[in-house]
Amino acid sequence: MRNSTQLDSLRVVLVAPRNPLNIGAVARAMSNFGFAHLRVVNPYEVAFREAKSAVGASPVLAAAKEFSEVADAIADCTLVVGTTAIRQRQLQQPLKILSAGSPAILKRLHSSPVALLFGSEKWGLSNDALSHCHWVMHIPTRKEHQSMNLGQAVAICLYELVRGNPPRAVPEPHPAAGSGAVERITETFLAALHKSEYINPKTGQLAEEKLRRLIRRLRLEAADAEVVLGMLHKILWKLEQLARTKN
Amino acid sequence: MRNSTQLDSLRVVLVAPRNPLNIGAVARAMSNFGFAHLRVVNPYEVAFREAKSAVGASPVLAAAKEFSEVADAIADCTLVVGTTAIRQRQLQQPLKILSAGSPAILKRLHSSPVALLFGSEKWGLSNDALSHCHWVMHIPTRKEHQSMNLGQAVAICLYELVRGNPPRAVPEPHPAAGSGAVERITETFLAALHKSEYINPKTGQLAEEKLRRLIRRLRLEAADAEVVLGMLHKILWKLEQLARTKN
Repeated sequence: MRNSTQLDSLRVVLVAPRNPLNIGAVARAMSNFGFAHLRVVNPYEVAFREAKSAVGASPVLAAAKEFSEVADAIADCTLVVGTTAIRQRQLQQPLKILSAGSPAILKRLHSSPVALLFGSEKWGLSNDALSHCHWVMHIPTRKEHQSMNLGQAVAICLYELVRGNPPRAVPEPHPAAGSGAVERITETFLAALHKSEYINPKTGQLAEEKLRRLIRRLRLEAADAEVVLGMLHKILWKLEQLARTKN
Repeated sequence: MRNSTQLDSLRVVLVAPRNPLNIGAVARAMSNFGFAHLRVVNPYEVAFREAKSAVGASPVLAAAKEFSEVADAIADCTLVVGTTAIRQRQLQQPLKILSAGSPAILKRLHSSPVALLFGSEKWGLSNDALSHCHWVMHIPTRKEHQSMNLGQAVAICLYELVRGNPPRAVPEPHPAAGSGAVERITETFLAALHKSEYINPKTGQLAEEKLRRLIRRLRLEAADAEVVLGMLHKILWKLEQLARTKN
């Protein structure tokens, strides 16, 4: 079993889950394997209430936190990993098989929180949710039947994380930027791109997702993120100031 | 993925299952991972009927065979492996952790059928059922919460059996940006930072070096570098255009 600090840094994030039994099954698997932090984004309300009030609902479920936006649910995480049954969409992010992705997650868990995202039972993760992810992981299923039950998929991912031997604790050279900081950079950059007419209002949504993915590929360090955010703020401020003076 | 003959030799045997949703979840996981032979011993009749008639019930479930005795369900198998949440009983058989037992099962599957037994949701395998087993396997859960959901336990065992195989070809990482492109980004970014008065002319040289190092830490991909350069050009153009209009 991993050391408890490491397990305590994982956030299991369910995006738009619809079935209370699945939410309960996820919480149970988390409890089985020693993970405590369940976050639920924009759940089907009735499902979340039912799951929480079910007989035998675990402490994990009782402590689950609800969010309305993916960005808020992952704000404290420096690594955000999505999960997918592949071939259903053209992925923009790097794709890793579970057994290959797991060591990278464990390594990061030594130093800072990691979010593992699971999409809704019906559609998986939306492109918007995926755009918050650094990379995406999949469980190697048969191509004729890829889509897994949510509770089973989560259980398998958590099993894989506790399965092997603890890797040696090697601190990362420089701490990575948190998702909150990365998202502030994205928003400020976006605002500057709107102001300078790089982004066409009609295609803004697509541009936003593309930019979000691009910025996550940069794997900014925490200190650099602060510098970059300062630069972008200043550029945006100047664009706004000049535009005001002009009118 | 294992070769299909090997997978085809596994019999997943549920002894006295009570919940139709669990039976359905077991069948789904079997289909996900390519196992076809589900056998059910002495199920709670209503549960088995409900599971079979559920919307979307898989071909695995439709082909499931029912037995009234464990002995009959495993008659064609040369290796019978039980599963248990340990510490609940005094085991008479050797106990192996899942990752250690799995290779032995796979080896036997090359030559002859193997049965993998799972007990009822409430009590696990009875001593009678266990007495048919050559050895017993367990999934390493937290000792404070060992008992797993049946569908999740089966999914994890099957995942472990297919896990060790060559993962699917993962596409090559994207090519990195050339130094020329990175330098053009640096220069354009610098120009925008001068225009927006982020950079003070007195300390410009130091800022330039810092920015150059920072941008190189990003390890931009070639395609991303082109996009970023386009964005920065547009921002710089707008800053210059607005400044001209102002004067």
